[in-house]
Amino acid sequence: MNQHNSISDRKDEHIRISLEEDVSGKNITTGLEKYRFIHQALPELDFKDINLSSDFLGKVVRTPFVISSMTGGTKQAMEINKNLALAAQARGWSMGLGSTRAALESPEHAYTFQVRQYAPDIPLFANLGAVQLNYGFTVDDCRKVIDLIEADALVLHLNSLQEVFQPGGDTNFKGLLKKIESLCSQLNVPVGVKEVGWGIHGAAAKKLSEIGVSFIDTAGSGGTSWSQVEKLRSQDPLKIKAAESFMDWGIPTADCIVSARAHGYKGMLLASGGIKNGVEAAKAIALGANLAGFGRSILKSAVESADSLISLFERIELECKIVMFGIGADSMSKLRNTSYLIKAD
Amino acid sequence: MNQHNSISDRKDEHIRISLEEDVSGKNITTGLEKYRFIHQALPELDFKDINLSSDFLGKVVRTPFVISSMTGGTKQAMEINKNLALAAQARGWSMGLGSTRAALESPEHAYTFQVRQYAPDIPLFANLGAVQLNYGFTVDDCRKVIDLIEADALVLHLNSLQEVFQPGGDTNFKGLLKKIESLCSQLNVPVGVKEVGWGIHGAAAKKLSEIGVSFIDTAGSGGTSWSQVEKLRSQDPLKIKAAESFMDWGIPTADCIVSARAHGYKGMLLASGGIKNGVEAAKAIALGANLAGFGRSILKSAVESADSLISLFERIELECKIVMFGIGADSMSKLRNTSYLIKAD
Amino acid sequence: MNQHNSISDRKDEHIRISLEEDVSGKNITTGLEKYRFIHQALPELDFKDINLSSDFLGKVVRTPFVISSMTGGTKQAMEINKNLALAAQARGWSMGLGSTRAALESPEHAYTFQVRQYAPDIPLFANLGAVQLNYGFTVDDCRKVIDLIEADALVLHLNSLQEVFQPGGDTNFKGLLKKIESLCSQLNVPVGVKEVGWGIHGAAAKKLSEIGVSFIDTAGSGGTSWSQVEKLRSQDPLKIKAAESFMDWGIPTADCIVSARAHGYKGMLLASGGIKNGVEAAKAIALGANLAGFGRSILKSAVESADSLISLFERIELECKIVMFGIGADSMSKLRNTSYLIKAD
Amino acid sequence: MNQHNSISDRKDEHIRISLEEDVSGKNITTGLEKYRFIHQALPELDFKDINLSSDFLGKVVRTPFVISSMTGGTKQAMEINKNLALAAQARGWSMGLGSTRAALESPEHAYTFQVRQYAPDIPLFANLGAVQLNYGFTVDDCRKVIDLIEADALVLHLNSLQEVFQPGGDTNFKGLLKKIESLCSQLNVPVGVKEVGWGIHGAAAKKLSEIGVSFIDTAGSGGTSWSQVEKLRSQDPLKIKAAESFMDWGIPTADCIVSARAHGYKGMLLASGGIKNGVEAAKAIALGANLAGFGRSILKSAVESADSLISLFERIELECKIVMFGIGADSMSKLRNTSYLIKAD
Ligand SMILES: Cc1cc2nc3c(=O)[nH]c(=O)nc-3n(C[C@H](O)[C@H](O)[C@H](O)COP(=O)(O)O)c2cc1C
Ligand SMILES: Cc1cc2nc3c(=O)[nH]c(=O)nc-3n(C[C@H](O)[C@H](O)[C@H](O)COP(=O)(O)O)c2cc1C
Ligand SMILES: Cc1cc2nc3c(=O)[nH]c(=O)nc-3n(C[C@H](O)[C@H](O)[C@H](O)COP(=O)(O)O)c2cc1C
Ligand SMILES: Cc1cc2nc3c(=O)[nH]c(=O)nc-3n(C[C@H](O)[C@H](O)[C@H](O)COP(=O)(O)O)c2cc1C
Repeated sequence: MNQHNSISDRKDEHIRISLEEDVSGKNITTGLEKYRFIHQALPELDFKDINLSSDFLGKVVRTPFVISSMTGGTKQAMEINKNLALAAQARGWSMGLGSTRAALESPEHAYTFQVRQYAPDIPLFANLGAVQLNYGFTVDDCRKVIDLIEADALVLHLNSLQEVFQPGGDTNFKGLLKKIESLCSQLNVPVGVKEVGWGIHGAAAKKLSEIGVSFIDTAGSGGTSWSQVEKLRSQDPLKIKAAESFMDWGIPTADCIVSARAHGYKGMLLASGGIKNGVEAAKAIALGANLAGFGRSILKSAVESADSLISLFERIELECKIVMFGIGADSMSKLRNTSYLIKAD
Repeated sequence: MNQHNSISDRKDEHIRISLEEDVSGKNITTGLEKYRFIHQALPELDFKDINLSSDFLGKVVRTPFVISSMTGGTKQAMEINKNLALAAQARGWSMGLGSTRAALESPEHAYTFQVRQYAPDIPLFANLGAVQLNYGFTVDDCRKVIDLIEADALVLHLNSLQEVFQPGGDTNFKGLLKKIESLCSQLNVPVGVKEVGWGIHGAAAKKLSEIGVSFIDTAGSGGTSWSQVEKLRSQDPLKIKAAESFMDWGIPTADCIVSARAHGYKGMLLASGGIKNGVEAAKAIALGANLAGFGRSILKSAVESADSLISLFERIELECKIVMFGIGADSMSKLRNTSYLIKAD
Repeated sequence: MNQHNSISDRKDEHIRISLEEDVSGKNITTGLEKYRFIHQALPELDFKDINLSSDFLGKVVRTPFVISSMTGGTKQAMEINKNLALAAQARGWSMGLGSTRAALESPEHAYTFQVRQYAPDIPLFANLGAVQLNYGFTVDDCRKVIDLIEADALVLHLNSLQEVFQPGGDTNFKGLLKKIESLCSQLNVPVGVKEVGWGIHGAAAKKLSEIGVSFIDTAGSGGTSWSQVEKLRSQDPLKIKAAESFMDWGIPTADCIVSARAHGYKGMLLASGGIKNGVEAAKAIALGANLAGFGRSILKSAVESADSLISLFERIELECKIVMFGIGADSMSKLRNTSYLIKAD
Repeated sequence: MNQHNSISDRKDEHIRISLEEDVSGKNITTGLEKYRFIHQALPELDFKDINLSSDFLGKVVRTPFVISSMTGGTKQAMEINKNLALAAQARGWSMGLGSTRAALESPEHAYTFQVRQYAPDIPLFANLGAVQLNYGFTVDDCRKVIDLIEADALVLHLNSLQEVFQPGGDTNFKGLLKKIESLCSQLNVPVGVKEVGWGIHGAAAKKLSEIGVSFIDTAGSGGTSWSQVEKLRSQDPLKIKAAESFMDWGIPTADCIVSARAHGYKGMLLASGGIKNGVEAAKAIALGANLAGFGRSILKSAVESADSLISLFERIELECKIVMFGIGADSMSKLRNTSYLIKAD
């Protein structure tokens, strides 16, 4: 019981800190600012023909945008999840829920994740820490959360450093690859793997796809830094000070994307970590991602209302379309395959 | 009638905003600052022998400088155009007029473009949005504006993103290449193509020259940013916010020039976009342009008086001559072919 | 007697200035900030299995960390040395003592270096200026200080520029290589060579190892600048002004490491100079060092108490372990041989 | 008479402006800061054996340092020249006098250049604007100034842009190469050529040496900018504004040196332009110069007293010696041929 409460407290604290404090990394960026589109003055397109529709988890979605896994397990989290779901349904975004561990451990929290009613059509995915597979979570537990959420997929997050900085974190990451492989073969929904803001390197993306993982979400550096979040929560002077030495840790989002494709990762790739607008999202896609994910940059609107989120989503979509107009691409596949993105010198 | 009024209002607003607000792009420059001339201590020249004369539109002009298309259609615009024409005639500059659409749509505005009387000798060109070819403008309309202005050429501007940010903009840019080709073959004056501040890429320059366009004006990034101008005019919160994501959009002027020549564009090339003095103009020419254009940086003087403009033009010419003295080039062709411009490291 | 006093005064002044004034170089850094680890989201490790143990001077030490030679010869120095020794013993660090010349020249100061009682198990080394071999110091003198301290090794420091800036410095550095060679062959403990903050170049490291030197400590630039320290002590206007021209002198610590290995130096390499935390230390090791040394960044804690030092040491160790967790390395040899350190662009 | 007065006024104004106003170029540096020495911890030298002696104009000089041509023609200039001469003699520096044209045109000013009495042993050289060869100056005039000054050499300055910015400047630089060639063959002292702060390119250095010029003084950019000096003197709004566009004009001093040697210039090379201390001078020499010149950075001391200058010279010499100690070079030829200077990345 206590433990469940502590998870809930933690969840609310994460949201409060993410909204109120400066939790971005220092001396590190997404790397997307190093890339520039080459404007095409003659797009040979009608702006209204530009189409953002994409495929994800067997569904056709109206946009290539995804809400990154963020919350659940508390009353406030429920509100946020509901707003996110309503807006996602309204605009055709995909949506990840926060770690569903809370729902498993205390069933009375389950309703905070159950947003399928507000978002019947979109790809929705459950979320669990991969490390929990070393701490008693079974394939059946995974099935339970998938069913509970009516999820199209399960996403496992890799958060090694967060577990270190977090009080009482679960830091045995041994043998996870094998366990993930076995999980993939037993579940009947696709399994994705994400980080939480330090990025997934290309070699790891490749390896994960080889053992049956269906999609990778970079969750790269340049946005939310979890060593910063945990530092602000911490009471432990040692860890507070140590966290400062990790403010620039991680793989920038742009580098994750490039590295995944350079290592021959051919699967579905979500780019996330520090993405703030449709231009950055378009850069991520032009670099090789299939979809782009938004975490903390949409959290404030998510706390406000579904309408606030819908406006924000519209703006992001408009920005992406303007990019596409600017380079003469009217479809996601053209954006993804454009040669009009260059590394600035 | 209403529509004509709205064009006029817009024109005056453009001028006011360009003069009073910060409408330059952010995190983007012309790129000209990356190039440096290699000083030649022994020029082996008499300064007074330095000659700026150039050819443009079949005329010999005393300078390689061009006034970028800016305005027309209102009383204030008439004053500006008259000052520009008087100064251009006095100093031997070429001159573009602002979009002549206003004159076509409401004949009572035509006089605001008719400056040939003040500038009998210089190359003068009419200006229309290329996209209007998709919105009802015909070859005959083009002939009409050319005659009205007694223009030596017609310049079509490509302004895709401006049309997106502008309320009620014309955003169907489909099939323009074909229409421009057909226009070129039917008009009996040369047709030029320019951007409005986001630049024309080399591949596009090449393609346009192949379909009969006689000259290209880069109108590159690093100077006036039209997303900024339209942002300041906009009432639409979505577009205001979206415009901020495009503050660094476009191809820097220097890159446009280099890219045009690198793609094998051999035609007449005007460099413009953010050029502020004769040193920058000389760099543009040494990079491969034939002529250099000035827009917003001369607008303030244009509002003041012809005399103010003449002083400004003299200064620009003097600066260009000093550059030429500094590298030992006494003619435009020597400046254009100099090997004494290098990319700084 | 006088001379001994002056050495003591100087030692206290060094400590005071190092603690109170800004004595870091300007426009120069360790270069370590140019390197980044590539995060490995899947470490496949249990955090608790990460092992920092290392070999040094024939002993197994619990950490790869070394206290740089700093002080001795005064009452305050004794306190500092005692604290350092207690903490080193507690945490398994190695320890260098400050220049033991004072102990030789005035035996009543000897006790200030005798910390073996507080640190029975750790590698401990004596320290002398190599240039003293040109000013009357003999092999027997060296033996005396080694015995006095019960040292595992003798470290000679090369401090050419410090001797120039210091009033009455010993500036004859001729023929030292030969004398060091002879010393190495006659002593029965290993001899190390370090700089004092301007770094040892790879070619010199190689040469020194060829004449019998057992380990090299880079003591590179980016941390304490001795021209700055001596400038603040100086009364001589000429030297004060001249010192300012040397604020950026020296070889950055990272460059020393890379250069040592690039020149084929295969021996034991201590990296030091400006290292402030466990992340920087881990970078130094991943670049090719065996151990990492801390000087001025631990001095403040050393003045406070052994406990303060122990906390600091724990933090540095934790940071190093988190780095290793972050890249999936559980031993020093894996850290040293990692390919997950790259030069950022 | 009037004209002579105006030259005198100009000379005093140059000094006043150089001392009181900011006359350095903007966005341009000497480039010397891009180079770093590689510290050699084991110099194998006795500091006192370091020898700065050099050859110049057939004399052995105690230092490789030269006072750049600065002034003459007024009472204040006489004071400055006397101080410079006394200090140069005291420390073994070489010395250039300011443009000796004033002395030719009004004999009553001749005494202001006659400092041989204060400096019997050092290389001393007369100075004239090369362009004066196009404005009536003859070989006999040159002989006259050489005799008057008892000069070891005549230095011609190339100052094309200064003549443009200066009111009534002499701007016919045609055919100078031929005239310089003829002058070289007729004078019986060596002829040098310098710029005044915009630098001499390697190709020009090579060409000048082929026609008989004995030494080149780079007088590169990064220090005094003559467009800035003339801007501050100017009454002409056109030129004041134009001068601002040339604040970053010229070839950085370091680039002049590298370019001279890269173009195969093998003659005597003086590096000057923006050099402020002995470290920068040593870098210039290590890059390929034989001697290093100081202009405006010593002017303030020159106005004060010979003693003030002597202290300054001592400091510069000390800095150069410390550099040499730091890299293990005990002679000018070793400094010039060192491989321990690298371009920082
Ligand atoms: C308040 C908050 C809570 C989060 N909770 C989770 C979580 O439960 N599971 C997860 O995989 N990631 C979680 N994340 C990480 C995000 O999914 C995302 O990967 C990370 O914040 C980086 O993206 P950003 O820079 O766009 O915020 C959370 C992030 C935030 C800001
Ligand atoms: C007030 C104003 C009005 C403009 N109107 C037109 C126009 O009607 N047609 C056109 O082709 N370009 C127009 N432009 C764009 C300019 O011709 C030019 O391409 C652009 O401003 C970039 O150059 P600059 O940085 O030198 O201002 C206008 C620019 C300004 C500042
Ligand atoms: C107060 C102080 C005293 C020092 N005394 C010595 C010494 O006696 N012998 C020596 O080899 N180095 C001495 N050093 C130099 C250090 O060992 C070290 O090489 C240098 O400070 C650079 O490392 P840091 O940047 O980590 O301080 C001293 C440094 C400090 C700060
Ligand atoms: C006050 C002043 C007067 C100068 N007069 C002359 C001159 O008469 N002849 C000449 O060749 N250079 C003259 N120069 C240029 C210098 O010789 C030198 O080339 C230039 O100042 C760049 O060096 P700096 O940056 O060290 O000052 C003068 C410079 C100064 C500051």
